[in-house]
Amino acid sequence: MKYISKLLLSSFLAVIAYPAFAAWEALPDKAPAPEDNPTTAEKVELGKMLFMDPRFSSTGTVSCNSCHNIMEGGDDSRSFSMGVHGKMGGRNAPTVWNSAFHSVQFWDGRADLLEDQAKGPVTNPVEMGVTEIEMAMNKVRAISGYKPYFEKAFGKNSMTVENAAKAVAAFERTLITPNSAYDRYVKGDKTAMTIQQIRGMNTFAKIGCTSCHSGAAFNGPKMPFGQGFYAKFPTFVDSKYIKQYNLLKDKGRESATGKPGDAHMFRVQTLRNITDTAPYFHNGSVNDLSEAVRLMAKTQLNQDLKDKDVADIVAFLAALTGEYPEIKMPRLPSTPGQSVLVEK
Amino acid sequence: MKYISKLLLSSFLAVIAYPAFAAWEALPDKAPAPEDNPTTAEKVELGKMLFMDPRFSSTGTVSCNSCHNIMEGGDDSRSFSMGVHGKMGGRNAPTVWNSAFHSVQFWDGRADLLEDQAKGPVTNPVEMGVTEIEMAMNKVRAISGYKPYFEKAFGKNSMTVENAAKAVAAFERTLITPNSAYDRYVKGDKTAMTIQQIRGMNTFAKIGCTSCHSGAAFNGPKMPFGQGFYAKFPTFVDSKYIKQYNLLKDKGRESATGKPGDAHMFRVQTLRNITDTAPYFHNGSVNDLSEAVRLMAKTQLNQDLKDKDVADIVAFLAALTGEYPEIKMPRLPSTPGQSVLVEK
Repeated sequence: MKYISKLLLSSFLAVIAYPAFAAWEALPDKAPAPEDNPTTAEKVELGKMLFMDPRFSSTGTVSCNSCHNIMEGGDDSRSFSMGVHGKMGGRNAPTVWNSAFHSVQFWDGRADLLEDQAKGPVTNPVEMGVTEIEMAMNKVRAISGYKPYFEKAFGKNSMTVENAAKAVAAFERTLITPNSAYDRYVKGDKTAMTIQQIRGMNTFAKIGCTSCHSGAAFNGPKMPFGQGFYAKFPTFVDSKYIKQYNLLKDKGRESATGKPGDAHMFRVQTLRNITDTAPYFHNGSVNDLSEAVRLMAKTQLNQDLKDKDVADIVAFLAALTGEYPEIKMPRLPSTPGQSVLVEK
Repeated sequence: MKYISKLLLSSFLAVIAYPAFAAWEALPDKAPAPEDNPTTAEKVELGKMLFMDPRFSSTGTVSCNSCHNIMEGGDDSRSFSMGVHGKMGGRNAPTVWNSAFHSVQFWDGRADLLEDQAKGPVTNPVEMGVTEIEMAMNKVRAISGYKPYFEKAFGKNSMTVENAAKAVAAFERTLITPNSAYDRYVKGDKTAMTIQQIRGMNTFAKIGCTSCHSGAAFNGPKMPFGQGFYAKFPTFVDSKYIKQYNLLKDKGRESATGKPGDAHMFRVQTLRNITDTAPYFHNGSVNDLSEAVRLMAKTQLNQDLKDKDVADIVAFLAALTGEYPEIKMPRLPSTPGQSVLVEK
């Protein structure tokens, strides 16, 4: 009897905290910002306006929010994003939620900062489709109602591309989702996660997911801006998944650096709110989270997971979905009596 | 001296209130609703979610808000709206703000109610592009998070197209912009409008704009739902504007009814917030409000306005821009771990 109690107790403890990986971290309340762009309320407000405003795209139909919908999971529910004229990009839109916790931006890490990232899609021909970024900025300048917002955020004569990007980045740094069941659990509320979720958390660590998906955002150790944390995906190429989901087509970071050594290297993605960001992976090829877990175990860790382990890990991943803050819709200024879209 | 005072006084009075048109009305605080769809907070919340959610369009990229952007003037700043795959519609998107005060919907009045209107764009091949409206509704049903919102608004087993449309209409009935300078003026605050605006208001009435643009929303007299107030546009066809802006191409209401007598008849549009809804007219052909005023005077009233009168009327029209209410962004439910967009 005593022995049975002990056994129960020890297995209970094993469920509570698997010793192989102790550094579980809660999401910070604030995201780090670069020294030259401290986050202020004025920048955040302006950034929110610019983020939501489709009028700067070549057609006037595509905003940052079109592909990174903050009313939902910060993405677009599509495999590949769709920009102006129905054109399709080549990679899945990563969520903007908690993107401030990435030390580099884009799947291939080609931008060091959100400030740099924000400028990319504007002139991408399959995204916002503007020929030169100054043309988009001229549309912003043509909307007189934006001027006071720039002045409040950056001072006089501040309607520049650099400041627009800074404002958008400042806004994005507020898009964080604390207080998930997982966060409450690691802060001490041992009832915040279910037994299955705790079991999934331990399996997640035990099989080695945490060798990449560590840290508060589950995207690797904290790094200085510009220094990315990458992993080769896929690492093991002898499974059915490779062909089924076309996983060797995209060369990953090699496309950004031109270095063969960067082939198939991808920035390690955050797992936060992953229940809200299907479909999965850089090519959005997997629609189902269970399948994504199975695939990752096989291609990254060369393991065939049992259905029970998959279900446990999926349950744990659901515990990473946090609280989305309430956001007031911005009021986008008009140009009294003129459309900014008409080319003159 | 006495005579001069009298003259000054009478011209001052003339500026204050032009006697030819006395029935200036402020915007009501609430919009009328049909008997079978009283506006409730639960419907409004669900309707806001559906209005903002692009996932029901064929591409997952177009929501009601794409063409009727409530963060701006309730339209899309484009001549013709752009739907899925960059396809273009044939008419300018009318503002959704204060659309609840129209007794019929669409430029040609082909829908009696907002409830009917809301269903149109879903299956329009150049708007949301879904083949059958039930296919869009199946996507809503696939998002389990919508179910409790339907239940709160309409009771059990209520996830139907009819209820979705009712919810969207209920939300749209809250999109009203009271308390413009004009509203404050007609409610008694005689300082709310500038002298120029008051002069413009009187010119507006004197030259006959009010024969169509009357009532609280400046879209004609109050009518029962389904009974539209239409006007022939253009009425006078002997001006440069006809060809310049291609005003005879669109047959207007005839395209809805098939009756030759309805040729070029259009529902009279609201003028509220007109400073925020360029470009103008059913074909969005005029970008500038001054030009729009000049054109209307010529094509509808056969008058050539002086520049001063145009400027005064434009100033008055700016006084019709009201207060947009603050709106909290809805949180759109996800389907845990699956994208609703992937066809199975």
